[in-house]
Amino acid sequence: MDDIIKQLAVLGSTGSIGQQTLDVVRALPHRFRIIGLAAGKNIALLSKQISEFKPKFVYYQGKKTQSHRPEGEYELLSLEGIACHPQVDMVVIATSGKAGLNPTLAAVQAGKTVALANKESLVMAGEIITKEAKRNSGQILPIDSEHSAIWQCLRDEIQEPVQIILTASGGPFHGYSLAQLEEVTLKQALSHPSWQMGRKVTIDSATLMNKGLEIIEARWLFNMPFDNIRALIHPQSIVHSMVEFVDGSVKAQLSYPDMRLPIQYALSYPERLANPQLPRLNWSTLKNLTFEPPDLDTFPCLKLTIEAGKRGGTYPAVLCAADEAAVELFLSQRIKFTDIARLVAQVLEQHQSIAHPTLEEIMAADSWARRKVLDLTGANAWNY
Amino acid sequence: MDDIIKQLAVLGSTGSIGQQTLDVVRALPHRFRIIGLAAGKNIALLSKQISEFKPKFVYYQGKKTQSHRPEGEYELLSLEGIACHPQVDMVVIATSGKAGLNPTLAAVQAGKTVALANKESLVMAGEIITKEAKRNSGQILPIDSEHSAIWQCLRDEIQEPVQIILTASGGPFHGYSLAQLEEVTLKQALSHPSWQMGRKVTIDSATLMNKGLEIIEARWLFNMPFDNIRALIHPQSIVHSMVEFVDGSVKAQLSYPDMRLPIQYALSYPERLANPQLPRLNWSTLKNLTFEPPDLDTFPCLKLTIEAGKRGGTYPAVLCAADEAAVELFLSQRIKFTDIARLVAQVLEQHQSIAHPTLEEIMAADSWARRKVLDLTGANAWNY
Repeated sequence: MDDIIKQLAVLGSTGSIGQQTLDVVRALPHRFRIIGLAAGKNIALLSKQISEFKPKFVYYQGKKTQSHRPEGEYELLSLEGIACHPQVDMVVIATSGKAGLNPTLAAVQAGKTVALANKESLVMAGEIITKEAKRNSGQILPIDSEHSAIWQCLRDEIQEPVQIILTASGGPFHGYSLAQLEEVTLKQALSHPSWQMGRKVTIDSATLMNKGLEIIEARWLFNMPFDNIRALIHPQSIVHSMVEFVDGSVKAQLSYPDMRLPIQYALSYPERLANPQLPRLNWSTLKNLTFEPPDLDTFPCLKLTIEAGKRGGTYPAVLCAADEAAVELFLSQRIKFTDIARLVAQVLEQHQSIAHPTLEEIMAADSWARRKVLDLTGANAWNY
Repeated sequence: MDDIIKQLAVLGSTGSIGQQTLDVVRALPHRFRIIGLAAGKNIALLSKQISEFKPKFVYYQGKKTQSHRPEGEYELLSLEGIACHPQVDMVVIATSGKAGLNPTLAAVQAGKTVALANKESLVMAGEIITKEAKRNSGQILPIDSEHSAIWQCLRDEIQEPVQIILTASGGPFHGYSLAQLEEVTLKQALSHPSWQMGRKVTIDSATLMNKGLEIIEARWLFNMPFDNIRALIHPQSIVHSMVEFVDGSVKAQLSYPDMRLPIQYALSYPERLANPQLPRLNWSTLKNLTFEPPDLDTFPCLKLTIEAGKRGGTYPAVLCAADEAAVELFLSQRIKFTDIARLVAQVLEQHQSIAHPTLEEIMAADSWARRKVLDLTGANAWNY
């Protein structure tokens, strides 16, 4: 059985997706082995993971001196060093924010298979990453539940679909009026009705920014024009997305909202593996699936992302960066929930986009947008 | 483009599925050509079809003298003669009842691709037909909307599914009590809420017998044990069936209830073809999909078929025949709606099944069951 064990590097192993990836590996030790782990600042959790999975390669942020270093026998490498290492069969990019971009690019350039949970990589630099993946026979497999659903529905379909329908739970504020949104608290925004996720993604789900970013991601993952991708509110989060074909047939993928399923599907593809820890739908209790078009006026972030995606250039990077900065201000309770969309809109409006940007130009646009959010809110760099 | 035109023989061309098959061919004349047509007694409609599609081979029931013969230049062949003709690329079996059995068997024995709408063939002789298809590299493609949905969801999936979920509209009497069912009229039973179908299938949908027959069909088409196939009531008839995989992921196929889609899918497989006549789902108006387990006590036919399917032997043939005879008595208003299930149950109870029957034994069981229904209802053979 040894020959079918995949050696995985998990970048962002202490985050929500990273931990759930390790859960899947824990449940299926005969199929997967952790060879690389990379984390940010949560050294305590990383140490535990190192002692459990005994990776050969490790990366973490911060001091590398012996006294700060997690215990264990491993080689310290950079994120890119781990992502490209010859012994790595698959790289799981589970970092959030722009930290995922460089290792993703490095991995596909090295012809690796990348299981991608990080949205920002494709949103900021979709054109560059997909081009480099194609040129170097690198593969990008989606981990997001929506993109995994689309990918599952497209198995063996010869023709391009005519429409991709990304479902969205609608978040905790589904059905709210604009006036009600002005008053929501951080705590309310962090209470997602169906998914357990990191804080940034949870806020992005509440603004529908997350669905917009997923539309841009889908554009690159499945090479679809924006006009053929739409979002549909589905509060039960059972149908994770749908695909419509040229003959009018629609395929959907369903399951209880549990990220371990799309993670495992990417890891095990083209196989599916039995995992008793994954929940199964129960049709005796599951009685009702509802759908409705999103309210773009109350949740302007969705409209903003589609607009930025269509315009292309450095707009999507600016959108991402402005959103990240704005969400951080909201998380530290310096701005209101509705200020997130306002700030993103203002930053986009003031941006001078560059067509077909280089990675450097994308990074510069990113920094510009973050500074701009701070300027607009009067939050100076040093107390941010 | 000539090399990709498929030459089709449509057996049962004047019935509901036959006419809709010709509709699909009419819409896609650059891809399909009608080379054979076979009908029962509707010579008037067959004549029109012959003059429109100019088939090379024709079969019809009744007198073959020049004065009775539909006009046109064609060769008269038997059903089996058409099904096996070397010039035929695909045989569409759209006949209802046991008339479909022999041509289906002949076609798979000749290594043909069969697009199968006839339920009785597989229910009565699933073991023989699937064995013969395998031995002669014949292919059976489902046309039923449910089996087409399952087949679409299974595209390229390497592993067997763990569960097949056949959806059922529930028919016109969904939610009725047993007492209410005793009183329903023929007219009510013929008013199906979502599908336009022939009279026999419409009544079978109202008793849920149809869903039971589909479960037996699915058992043979997808080589699944009965315990892994279940029916689920879904009154909107949008989700045509679902498949659950070993990892807990479920795939579903959706579309408006229109038989032309599954017919076209079987005809064009592995391609999908654009056909402006096929309806598209509209997610602005489609708001609610509901599901509930079937009520087996009120609709005993479903339980009877699963039981007959599990017991195997000549039981499924007896079930089919008894149902056909009982439905005919109901259609001619000689028995009540609820008598259908009662008669089928009585006939099954009195049957002495033969394990792994030959075709002759299946046919004998069929005749026995039909006679038995007439005996039990006091309807003598000569006034039937």
